[in-house]
Amino acid sequence: MLSKILEPDSIAVIGASSNREKWGYRILDNIISGGYSGEVYPVNPNEDEVLGIRCHPSVLDIPERVDLSIIAVPAGIVPAVLEDCGRKGVRGVVIVSAGFGEVGNSELENNVRDIARDYDMRMIGPNTFGFINTQLHLNASIIPQMPEKGGISFVTQSGTFGLALVDWAASQQMGLHLVVGVGNKADVDDSDILEHLSADRHTKTIMMYIEGIERGRRFIDVASRIRKPIIALKTGRSRAGSKAALSHTGSIAGADRIYDGAFKQAGVIRARVIEELFDSALALSISPPADDGIGIISNGGGAAILAADLCEDLGLHLPDPSDDTVRMLKSVLPAIATPANPLDTAGDGSYEMFKDVTGIMLSDPGINALLVIYVHAEMVDPCLPAEAVIDASEGCDKPVITSWIGGKGIGTAVKLLEENKMPNYPLAERAVVALNNLVRYKRILQKR
Amino acid sequence: MLSKILEPDSIAVIGASSNREKWGYRILDNIISGGYSGEVYPVNPNEDEVLGIRCHPSVLDIPERVDLSIIAVPAGIVPAVLEDCGRKGVRGVVIVSAGFGEVGNSELENNVRDIARDYDMRMIGPNTFGFINTQLHLNASIIPQMPEKGGISFVTQSGTFGLALVDWAASQQMGLHLVVGVGNKADVDDSDILEHLSADRHTKTIMMYIEGIERGRRFIDVASRIRKPIIALKTGRSRAGSKAALSHTGSIAGADRIYDGAFKQAGVIRARVIEELFDSALALSISPPADDGIGIISNGGGAAILAADLCEDLGLHLPDPSDDTVRMLKSVLPAIATPANPLDTAGDGSYEMFKDVTGIMLSDPGINALLVIYVHAEMVDPCLPAEAVIDASEGCDKPVITSWIGGKGIGTAVKLLEENKMPNYPLAERAVVALNNLVRYKRILQKR
Repeated sequence: MLSKILEPDSIAVIGASSNREKWGYRILDNIISGGYSGEVYPVNPNEDEVLGIRCHPSVLDIPERVDLSIIAVPAGIVPAVLEDCGRKGVRGVVIVSAGFGEVGNSELENNVRDIARDYDMRMIGPNTFGFINTQLHLNASIIPQMPEKGGISFVTQSGTFGLALVDWAASQQMGLHLVVGVGNKADVDDSDILEHLSADRHTKTIMMYIEGIERGRRFIDVASRIRKPIIALKTGRSRAGSKAALSHTGSIAGADRIYDGAFKQAGVIRARVIEELFDSALALSISPPADDGIGIISNGGGAAILAADLCEDLGLHLPDPSDDTVRMLKSVLPAIATPANPLDTAGDGSYEMFKDVTGIMLSDPGINALLVIYVHAEMVDPCLPAEAVIDASEGCDKPVITSWIGGKGIGTAVKLLEENKMPNYPLAERAVVALNNLVRYKRILQKR
Repeated sequence: MLSKILEPDSIAVIGASSNREKWGYRILDNIISGGYSGEVYPVNPNEDEVLGIRCHPSVLDIPERVDLSIIAVPAGIVPAVLEDCGRKGVRGVVIVSAGFGEVGNSELENNVRDIARDYDMRMIGPNTFGFINTQLHLNASIIPQMPEKGGISFVTQSGTFGLALVDWAASQQMGLHLVVGVGNKADVDDSDILEHLSADRHTKTIMMYIEGIERGRRFIDVASRIRKPIIALKTGRSRAGSKAALSHTGSIAGADRIYDGAFKQAGVIRARVIEELFDSALALSISPPADDGIGIISNGGGAAILAADLCEDLGLHLPDPSDDTVRMLKSVLPAIATPANPLDTAGDGSYEMFKDVTGIMLSDPGINALLVIYVHAEMVDPCLPAEAVIDASEGCDKPVITSWIGGKGIGTAVKLLEENKMPNYPLAERAVVALNNLVRYKRILQKR
C-alpha cells in the first residue's frame, strides 16, 4: 500500500533548487548521488535545470508517470502543488516542508491531508526529513550519508534527532533497510509503516523512536500481528520530558504506564536508551530469538565476570555446564582453567581454543545462547578467535553474540565479525543488553 | 613513596629480549618508542644488545644508579633477579612475570614479597601488565598504544581486560595520566596507589577496576581521606560472577553489599558498567562537582526529552526556569519556542542562539549544572554552537556537559570541544549518567 511511496519507479522533487542551502537541493542531490536508478524529475517554475537535469515548472508538465512527489516548498504553497500532484495522478507524496501542526498551524495541516485523501494519495509528513531505501540506493531525505544495507528498518517521529541518529548509525556501519521520518503523521502514521514493513521482505527487525501515538488501539492491533521483532524507544516518560514533548511535537505524550501496557500487549520490546535500541535491533536483525540459559566464554576473566554480573541484574540465568560439557571442556582447557560458566580460557585466545570451547558450550543442552568475549592481548591475532567463533557457530540455531574488546589492533577482526553477520559489540555490557532482548523477544513469541 | 617506581629517573628492564614475541621485547620497545627521557638499561645475560642498546648480564653490572627494575623473566628466576635488585640498591620493582598466586603458586609469591621487603623495595605485581605515566612519556607496560595525556589515573586489577580497556580508551582519545596494573597485589595494593595518587598533582580523578580488596579497613581509611573523586567498578556482584572471580584472581570476591557499604563509607562512587566508569571519570576529571538542579538545552526536541526522562530516572531534578530567566529567554528565542527546562531552541543551532541560551540558563540561580545537546542538522556548522558553549561557559563555576550527536559531519566540532576541556558524549544518555556522578560526588563532599 505504501510501496508507491517507499519503492517508487519515478520521483518528482517539487521545490528542487540550485541553492545548496535549500532542502530542495539537498534532497535532489542525495537522490542522485545515492545511485537511485529510477526516473527523477526536478520541479520548480523558477529554474530551467537543477543539477544538470531539466526542470519542469509543474508536476503537470512531466509527460511520464510519477509515482512519488517529494515536496519541499514553503508551507503556504503546499496545498497548490498537492492539487497538481493529485491531478497528475501521483500515488504518494512526502511533505518535507515544515510550518504545520508542529507550530500550531493545524488548519493548514488538515487542509493538506484532505487534498491528499480527495485524490487517494498516501502522504508522509508534513515536517519529515524524508526516507531512505538502501535496497533501491534511494536517499530521498536530507540525511547526508546513506547507511549500509541491512535488515533493520527505522521509523522515527523526531526529525532532527532521527536524522542525526541515522547519520551516527551510518558512521558505526550499522546496516539499515528503510528509514522513515513520520513527521507530523497527518496521514501515514506508525501503524501504516508497520503494516508495510510487516510484508517487506528486506526488513528483519523494526526499530522505532516514538514521542506519542494517537491511534493506540490500531497500533496494538497492527504490532501484535507482525511476525518480526519490534523494538521501540518511547520518550516523554518523565514530568519534564512529557512537558517538553508537548511543546515539541504537539502530540500529547500520555501517561507512561499506558505506553508500557500497550507495548506489552502489542509484543513490542521497549528500550530505555538509544544505545539499547540500536544495539538490540542489531542482534534482533541477525540472530534468532533465545530461550534463557546463557553461556559466557572469555579469554580474560574480568570481562566475563562483568558480563555475568549484568546477566544476573537483568534476570538472565547462567546454568552450570552439564557433566558431558565439563568432561569435554577439561580435555581442551589448560590445566589452570576451570570448566565452568562463565568460562575463562585462562588467556588462550587461539583459533583452536575458541573453536573448541565455542563448539562444546553450544552443544550443552542447558545453554541456549552464547556470549563470546575476546579481550585483546597484544601477542594474539584477534582475527583467529573471530574466525573460530564464526566457524564453530555456523549452522547452529542458538544465537551467538560477540564482544571484541580493544583499541585499534582489533579493527580487522571486528570487520570480519560484521561481514559474517555476528552481532559484535565493543563492550561486553552492551552485548549482554542485546542478548537480553533476544530472550525478551522469545518470551513475546511464546505468549502469542 | 611510590614515586621511585612511578616516576623513575632510570629503569632496568630485566629479561629484555630481541624476540618480538616476548614481553621483555615489548616493554623495552614501548619505553623507547614512547619517548621516555630517563636512562634505560636492558638486562639479559644472553644478549649483547637489545634494540640497539647495550645489554647488561645482571642489574649488578650497571654502573649507574637504577630507580626501577621491570622484571619480565620466568617466574622461577624472579627471586634470584630480585636479590640482585636488592643488592644493587634498586628502590622499586614491577614484576610483569606471571605464574604466582593466580595459578596457586602462593609460596613463590610470598617468597618474592619477602625478598622485596628485606631490601626495602616497593613492588608492583607480580602478574601485572606494568604501568604508564603519560606525563613522563613512559610506557612501562605491554599496552601497545600510549593514551593521550589527561587528568584521569586508572588503577586496574585485571591484566588483559585492563590492557584492552586502556587501548580502547586510547582509541577514544580519552586523556589519562597514570595507568597501573596492580596484578596480584603481593606488596603494593590499591590503597598504596591511592595514597600516591592523592598527592600526585597531575591526577584529578581516580578510576578503578576492582575484583577484590583484601585490606578493606585500610582502603576505606585511605579513600575517605582523598580530596579527589574516586570512581570504581567492582565486579563479581553476581553468583556466577563471584564464582568466576574466585577462579580468576584467587581473591575472594566478598558479598556485594559489603563492598557497597565500604564504598559508601569511603566516599567512592560506584559505577555499574565500563561505559559509566569511563564516561563519568572524564566528567569528574574536568568539571567541578554539582549540586542537583539540572538545566537542559537542545536544538532538537527528541534528545532533550530523552535526557529529561533519564534525569528523572536517576533522581535528578530539572527546575523550572526563574521568572528572570523566562523573560531573558523570551527575548532571544524564536516565537514558536517555549522558555522552559528542557529548553528547545526549535531548530536554531546558531552561535548566537547557543551563546545566549547557555549564558541565560547558567545565570539562573536554580540551575546548578547544564547539559547542552546539539543534534546535527546538515545545514549548520556544528563548530559554531560548540564555540558558543565554550565561550558562554568560560569562567563559570557550574559544570557544563555537552553531547554533540551526529555522524562524520561533527568530527571537527567534537575535537574543538575536547580541546577546550568540555566533557562531550556521542549520546545524550551517556552525558546524563556522567552528570549524575558529578552530583553524587558533590553529595559525598558535603557529607565529609
